[in-house]
Amino acid sequence: MWGGREGYETLLNTDLRQEREQLGRLMQMVVEHKHKIGFKGAILIEPKPQEPTKHQYDYDTATVYGFLKQFGLENEIKVNIEANHATLAGHSFHHEVATATSLGLFGSIDANRGDAQLGWDTDQFPNSVEENTLVMYEILKAGGFTTGGFNFDARVRRPSIDLEDLFHGHIGGMDVMALSLERAADMIENDVLSKNIAQRYSGWNEDLGKKILTGDLNLEQVANYAVDKNLSPVKESGRQEHLENIVNGFIYK
Amino acid sequence: MWGGREGYETLLNTDLRQEREQLGRLMQMVVEHKHKIGFKGAILIEPKPQEPTKHQYDYDTATVYGFLKQFGLENEIKVNIEANHATLAGHSFHHEVATATSLGLFGSIDANRGDAQLGWDTDQFPNSVEENTLVMYEILKAGGFTTGGFNFDARVRRPSIDLEDLFHGHIGGMDVMALSLERAADMIENDVLSKNIAQRYSGWNEDLGKKILTGDLNLEQVANYAVDKNLSPVKESGRQEHLENIVNGFIYK
Amino acid sequence: MWGGREGYETLLNTDLRQEREQLGRLMQMVVEHKHKIGFKGAILIEPKPQEPTKHQYDYDTATVYGFLKQFGLENEIKVNIEANHATLAGHSFHHEVATATSLGLFGSIDANRGDAQLGWDTDQFPNSVEENTLVMYEILKAGGFTTGGFNFDARVRRPSIDLEDLFHGHIGGMDVMALSLERAADMIENDVLSKNIAQRYSGWNEDLGKKILTGDLNLEQVANYAVDKNLSPVKESGRQEHLENIVNGFIYK
Amino acid sequence: MWGGREGYETLLNTDLRQEREQLGRLMQMVVEHKHKIGFKGAILIEPKPQEPTKHQYDYDTATVYGFLKQFGLENEIKVNIEANHATLAGHSFHHEVATATSLGLFGSIDANRGDAQLGWDTDQFPNSVEENTLVMYEILKAGGFTTGGFNFDARVRRPSIDLEDLFHGHIGGMDVMALSLERAADMIENDVLSKNIAQRYSGWNEDLGKKILTGDLNLEQVANYAVDKNLSPVKESGRQEHLENIVNGFIYK
Repeated sequence: MWGGREGYETLLNTDLRQEREQLGRLMQMVVEHKHKIGFKGAILIEPKPQEPTKHQYDYDTATVYGFLKQFGLENEIKVNIEANHATLAGHSFHHEVATATSLGLFGSIDANRGDAQLGWDTDQFPNSVEENTLVMYEILKAGGFTTGGFNFDARVRRPSIDLEDLFHGHIGGMDVMALSLERAADMIENDVLSKNIAQRYSGWNEDLGKKILTGDLNLEQVANYAVDKNLSPVKESGRQEHLENIVNGFIYK
Repeated sequence: MWGGREGYETLLNTDLRQEREQLGRLMQMVVEHKHKIGFKGAILIEPKPQEPTKHQYDYDTATVYGFLKQFGLENEIKVNIEANHATLAGHSFHHEVATATSLGLFGSIDANRGDAQLGWDTDQFPNSVEENTLVMYEILKAGGFTTGGFNFDARVRRPSIDLEDLFHGHIGGMDVMALSLERAADMIENDVLSKNIAQRYSGWNEDLGKKILTGDLNLEQVANYAVDKNLSPVKESGRQEHLENIVNGFIYK
Repeated sequence: MWGGREGYETLLNTDLRQEREQLGRLMQMVVEHKHKIGFKGAILIEPKPQEPTKHQYDYDTATVYGFLKQFGLENEIKVNIEANHATLAGHSFHHEVATATSLGLFGSIDANRGDAQLGWDTDQFPNSVEENTLVMYEILKAGGFTTGGFNFDARVRRPSIDLEDLFHGHIGGMDVMALSLERAADMIENDVLSKNIAQRYSGWNEDLGKKILTGDLNLEQVANYAVDKNLSPVKESGRQEHLENIVNGFIYK
Repeated sequence: MWGGREGYETLLNTDLRQEREQLGRLMQMVVEHKHKIGFKGAILIEPKPQEPTKHQYDYDTATVYGFLKQFGLENEIKVNIEANHATLAGHSFHHEVATATSLGLFGSIDANRGDAQLGWDTDQFPNSVEENTLVMYEILKAGGFTTGGFNFDARVRRPSIDLEDLFHGHIGGMDVMALSLERAADMIENDVLSKNIAQRYSGWNEDLGKKILTGDLNLEQVANYAVDKNLSPVKESGRQEHLENIVNGFIYK
């Protein structure tokens, strides 16, 4: 359900609430129909912030989540994330994938990239192992694809007018994704990042943390607890540079 | 509940799902506590996409809506929209206000603007009647403030080092907002835009439109209806330039 | 000489020095030819940073100046500034016009605007009196047009499909420019800004300032002068908010 | 001569021509003084588009070139390019270095990077071998440094509060630059890109091309030549995808 034209050109002629209701009901009808006919495939929305319209309703993954949640569709529809659309929305490709997996919306990928300096869809073949290794890592960590896969919705650059340019584009893109998968698999097998993250949030698996998250403690009780126990948490380093070096150590073995 | 530091610097050390759960539970605890003590004030979240962190969880109004919906808080917490944060998130100020009113989240306003050419919070006093007339119009159309109001979270520019610059900043900002309110009130009293919008969506108040939105018709029935009646909708102009001229006619009487 | 395709898609196949030499020689040939045939019209370059190519050599007015200076063409070729291209280059329309007049390059204007939230050429009709009053003021202050004039290189928005939309676009654009001219003329006749600027730089018309600018004093002499006279300049406010209010006072009489 | 505060906050109080004259004369005085005292070091200007001011006069390398050329300083002052400032100016780091070498302005490097999604100076340690290999290649191709070198004007991220984070930042940055240099040296030794570029522009070394560039032919003569010889140039592919794959082949051996 590619929403590339579901948006507005100007708020002066637009009723946002009305359009959202219409779009929400349409998606519900599609889902109901899918179940009625026994269709087993996934239904995907592809977030895109703009172009051709000024503003599109499926702006990014977080926006799509709110829309699905409003219409009770968050378990029915997933997102197809495009690298280029992440760029246009002001996010990293990695961010969009991580957001989708964290919200249970991860469906499929269009791997075509944009250009960090340009404000429109260039739909170039992927060529950064650095960028795609993190994307692959995120997907592997979340259990891999259960629907969809990687798609190039890419085209060669306008001056690439030879037939063989099509081969170079596809071959280069495939090589980049394959190498990224290898690097990411290696990261998973020797997973330093996940251990670090587990350590960072480990307090939330202890008694106090669990009781807060499950709702066994209210605000007043937590406040009293902090006072009674004289809690005085010590800041810990985020260690970003260390972690970036670790990732580079996997990419450049 | 200004979330200006609730975000991440790097995904390499961050568990997005975990952080969202923590933030969601915190907001629930705050709301529960409010009711327990009988506090009548509104609880507001102020969307901001980034700065100081790379990515903040309250990115924009649409993102905040999804968060509130997930934790059952969409009727408990509203947004405090800042003009400058809209700019940083890639939206117009008007967009953020219209999005909030359409989602039932409109709470309050920080009127301080950014600079369309700059990528950080400049927190300048409002000085565009053109921009703020549309914001005022949107608020009046939605019934005005039921909580909050306009706040300048502004500062004078770094080279404005005299005491009197503070007066010029506040006076100019007040004048801009007052003039914008007058223009917007005039637009409401002679409301051409709303009539145009009502006309644009009028089909949805007729029999077919109503049945679609209420769920009385499913996808197959709508498809059959279109075939049976030989429906062939004719595209109509969005009339953007005409509507923009009408607005300018109110601003520059 | 619209340079919309003089640029590169990738540095990997580009010799920047070579391309600049070729472009420079082409422009020289055009100028030589103009004089040879006695053509009296102005030759204009239209700065544009990108689109369709990744990077265009006539990026903005300051970049064009360096190019013209290198090839001895700074008195032969002027710029045609487009509002939309200023936006794409990360500048305000006002900035591009002020830069051109300050460098003696001001030639003509394409008044079509972009959208502050979009990264491509939308070529919309002008509709901001606030923006265009400052542009008109800058042009009047510099003595007005000696070549060229205002041109709409604009189109109506994609959903504006009626014939009458073309009228609304052109009429609205004309009205905006006419009103902006009136406001700017009023500013010129009651020119508070120029007086303030003259005051700000007045020291440079006094003995010391003149001697520095004409080269009568070298660095050592100026340093000694500062020490001998025990100079201790006092910072003065830039008064930005005050000046912005003055401008608004002219726009909203 | 770091120009980080030479710019304007608002055009309303600024005389661009006057400020440029002042800045130009200051730079001339510095250069004259350098020669007078026999100082042998390089004088560098560091381009930066904005922050803290709205607009800085040393916006990017192409802008600095025009400034130097106006004041006869293009052989006296070079640029110190910062990766982060390229990002803020809407350019790639590679672009700024290639522009500087093509204009004979290449002086030195601040290797600290920004974040493609953020609009302010984050001054992070370099961590992309993909980006820095192209920068190293450009520098090696131009003959390497004759002044300056690589400098980290970097800081660890705000949450990196441990002493050891400083080590991780510096070590990681050094490793990235060292690896990038190795990859780039390998590219130079097996230089496919330069051969491709030489081929692309080879016509300009033949009789017609030389005569055009040296000015031996005027526009009319070239036009006649094209007609007489019935010239009908055939477009050739830019081969961008092929060249990108070649570069990746060097980075990921």
